[in-house]
Amino acid sequence: MVDLDEIRAEVDSALAGFFDRTTLAGGVEPHSDDMIEVIEGFVLTGGKRIRPVLCVLGWLAADPRPRCRAPLIGLAAGLEMFHAAILIHDDVVDRSATRRGRPTVHRVMAGLRPGGSPQDDEWFGNCAAIVLGDLALAWADKLACQQLSAEQLGRVLPQIAQMRHEVTVGQFLDLHSAGAGSSDADLAEMIIRYKTAYYTVYRPLSIGAAAGDASREVTRALHHYGMPVGKAFQLRDDLLGLFGDPQVTGKPITDDARAGKHTALITHARTAASPSQAVKLAQLWGKPDITESEVDVVRDILSATGTVRTAEHLIAEHHRAALAALDSPHLPTEVADALRTVADRAVERDR
Amino acid sequence: MVDLDEIRAEVDSALAGFFDRTTLAGGVEPHSDDMIEVIEGFVLTGGKRIRPVLCVLGWLAADPRPRCRAPLIGLAAGLEMFHAAILIHDDVVDRSATRRGRPTVHRVMAGLRPGGSPQDDEWFGNCAAIVLGDLALAWADKLACQQLSAEQLGRVLPQIAQMRHEVTVGQFLDLHSAGAGSSDADLAEMIIRYKTAYYTVYRPLSIGAAAGDASREVTRALHHYGMPVGKAFQLRDDLLGLFGDPQVTGKPITDDARAGKHTALITHARTAASPSQAVKLAQLWGKPDITESEVDVVRDILSATGTVRTAEHLIAEHHRAALAALDSPHLPTEVADALRTVADRAVERDR
Repeated sequence: MVDLDEIRAEVDSALAGFFDRTTLAGGVEPHSDDMIEVIEGFVLTGGKRIRPVLCVLGWLAADPRPRCRAPLIGLAAGLEMFHAAILIHDDVVDRSATRRGRPTVHRVMAGLRPGGSPQDDEWFGNCAAIVLGDLALAWADKLACQQLSAEQLGRVLPQIAQMRHEVTVGQFLDLHSAGAGSSDADLAEMIIRYKTAYYTVYRPLSIGAAAGDASREVTRALHHYGMPVGKAFQLRDDLLGLFGDPQVTGKPITDDARAGKHTALITHARTAASPSQAVKLAQLWGKPDITESEVDVVRDILSATGTVRTAEHLIAEHHRAALAALDSPHLPTEVADALRTVADRAVERDR
Repeated sequence: MVDLDEIRAEVDSALAGFFDRTTLAGGVEPHSDDMIEVIEGFVLTGGKRIRPVLCVLGWLAADPRPRCRAPLIGLAAGLEMFHAAILIHDDVVDRSATRRGRPTVHRVMAGLRPGGSPQDDEWFGNCAAIVLGDLALAWADKLACQQLSAEQLGRVLPQIAQMRHEVTVGQFLDLHSAGAGSSDADLAEMIIRYKTAYYTVYRPLSIGAAAGDASREVTRALHHYGMPVGKAFQLRDDLLGLFGDPQVTGKPITDDARAGKHTALITHARTAASPSQAVKLAQLWGKPDITESEVDVVRDILSATGTVRTAEHLIAEHHRAALAALDSPHLPTEVADALRTVADRAVERDR
């Protein structure tokens, strides 16, 4: 049996080991250790570790008994570090104050700046987060690649490049569409595909599979499983963002609404809304100072227009499609079992 | 003879070819082509191409007659794309409005946002530049790696990871020390080492050398050449930033002063200043709205304290040390000749 908790523990231990070995500027610069600790605290505290777990499962799907586990765990840990880098930049862009129930990196950094005006501190925090995100990006590749053989590198790097291209395009579309008030469902679908279906689910699987030298059949089965899991994951994320418990999700209930995110939920609601509901949505979705009681109004519209019901229905449908893909004869049984657990958790979660 | 102009033309053609082949999100998203054009315009217009040229020379130092030139040029073009990514982020951090005589990427993007307030447009421009910089980072690795053999990848990747670590640490130190008013010469020296000596000169050489499977002796000779060239290059940059012709450098004369950059020039001036000069420097260096006539005052202090003379003396000394390193018997003559030209141009330039 594949033990998912054990994979998570191995990945965390690889990440912690990397931070223990890493110094900035040879440790000479007095503030450098603080900086490492800020990134370290962010990476090691919280996070579902879904990407590294999927990467390991992708590898095991191709190669169920790897001769040596360290390169596999290093690659998976590299994906988690990459994700941290993306989140650090993302939180600047989204002006998010908390993540995983803690202050975001740009907020922590703003607080470390001694003695400027609040505006100066905020600007410094944002700039420091840009640079620290770039640093985490560099570390991600180092962690991912340093234990792979030359042949594995040759197979894995094009997949990693593809992942980096896709997630950044997804973020750009997200940024560009936020607050635009469109009800373009194709665009929302494209954002989901890039930001989540590929990035969160399929690419980690395909990167692991490439490292393990997967056959075309295995890769195809992972694709048929990964894409619907990714779509269900994102729909659940959008629902949790508005209807979840902020104490559990670690994310303020107003975040998505304030940013005016172009989600599948909101495009559905805009299309199904009555004229008066549409006016309300246009006023509230993307309102920079939206209050919790205004979010309640949005929630009521999402329920009244059948948007929540439709989303739950779609989630269930994607879930079924993903599980059906696991019947492929090309996937080892114990890997398919583990992927089933991952899909169940991605769909039925409260954080 | 190694033709430096030909190398530049090959690199530019590899970059142009990459942009021709690249679409975002399969070209479906309507704004995606604009975005590619913004990055493309930035990368292809201007720039000294010193890093890709050095990368090619590093490779040729190890392997003077490479069987196939395409992987070499791809690797060099990847470094130029990486540099573009770093500059895109850097210009956000430094609030620079122009670069290479054109509006910076965040300014261009701010202008593409239809209809927000000026603050909204500025914020959007900054966020878009963060994301576009991340995209260029992804493309950099793709360009650099896609034509290398597995063995070359295994040798090159640790060097690229090291470069990315070093330049980001340099930027962090730069950011953290800016405006702090310190006269810590060791810190200024460390920033030079990370941001320029390693990043601009030695690492491109060592990345090329690693790809070409250089001997230890060749790598050591390139190090002895590269570090002083890098230091001289940065001192020249600092001088041009204050005493150069903005029409030629493409950079406003007030940029470094406004940011309060912790340069070797300013630490020397602070140490050599009279009490009244020190007060003036403290008032002006890092003044957000510094005027050109106030920059004149800074210039006068740098001249009066002997800072300019000392910098020119140091540049000449580093230049000599670099040329001496080229006498190594391990470097092919035509590569040493080309490196001599590069050193001369790095030291005696007006942009």
